[in-house]
Amino acid sequence: MMTFNELAKARYSCRKFSGKTVEKEKIDYILRAAQLAPTAVNFQPQKIYVITSADALTKINDCTKYGFNAPINFLVCYDKNTSWKRGYDGEDFGSIDASIVITHMMLAATEQGLGSTWVGSFDPSKVREAFDLPENIIPVSFLPIGYPADDAHPAHLHDKRRELSETVTFI
Amino acid sequence: MMTFNELAKARYSCRKFSGKTVEKEKIDYILRAAQLAPTAVNFQPQKIYVITSADALTKINDCTKYGFNAPINFLVCYDKNTSWKRGYDGEDFGSIDASIVITHMMLAATEQGLGSTWVGSFDPSKVREAFDLPENIIPVSFLPIGYPADDAHPAHLHDKRRELSETVTFI
Repeated sequence: MMTFNELAKARYSCRKFSGKTVEKEKIDYILRAAQLAPTAVNFQPQKIYVITSADALTKINDCTKYGFNAPINFLVCYDKNTSWKRGYDGEDFGSIDASIVITHMMLAATEQGLGSTWVGSFDPSKVREAFDLPENIIPVSFLPIGYPADDAHPAHLHDKRRELSETVTFI
Repeated sequence: MMTFNELAKARYSCRKFSGKTVEKEKIDYILRAAQLAPTAVNFQPQKIYVITSADALTKINDCTKYGFNAPINFLVCYDKNTSWKRGYDGEDFGSIDASIVITHMMLAATEQGLGSTWVGSFDPSKVREAFDLPENIIPVSFLPIGYPADDAHPAHLHDKRRELSETVTFI
């Protein structure tokens, strides 16, 4: 078992998957991690599509270049009709909530020995069309998941992080 | 040590803190978790203010009702000048990136035996004024952190989560 920071460090954007099937128990574990995610005012506006059928997996390629032929792909959305809006300025927290959910899912997948990549680079209108999303469902990320291929590896600059002195200010 | 889902389940929104000082090593650990967070295209637009001085802690109360008198508070922002924008529709991923960072910080704090609460309910214009944020720095969350008070406890509905059948669709 790993410490949290060991787990966070072990995660990388996996861009090549083996064909090995992901066990149902592991999918369930990842969905449980999604369920445990906190959301604003506990409104839980997330809507998760688990894409495993050949037909649905094929549709992903119409929406993004980054499906990576993963054996399973999650499409994580939120329902803008049920997400919390901040009173002060009307800010919609749906995207933030979905991001917490996706972060949980990535980390749970890593712990289970699976690779994943957060894919935000997609055409939202094509996703809406391909997956017949109602107008109130806003797609935030695809999350391809699977066993990493033998030669999968972090991108060259994966470990490159800014120094904390560049991002952190003590006041 | 806990599994990821045990850690996720252990986290709750802690609203009452003891006066005990948080050790520097624990603050460093939480900041390391923030540093390890993935961000869109690894642009790392996060900007984290670590608020520990009495003067700065007092200012929080001008911005939100939810400072909880924590001994330390983080203000997590992103720089909209450096965050990734999606080509398809111009969507700014800064808020998503900050959310991944904050999720890492919350989980790392939980692992260290600390309580925390994601506070999104604040007046953004008052935060900007109180902490003299430049126009390009967008505040996403306060994160009060400290040792939980002896009588701290999850809110009544903390564990209440929607059934997966309500949020998940297999396709």
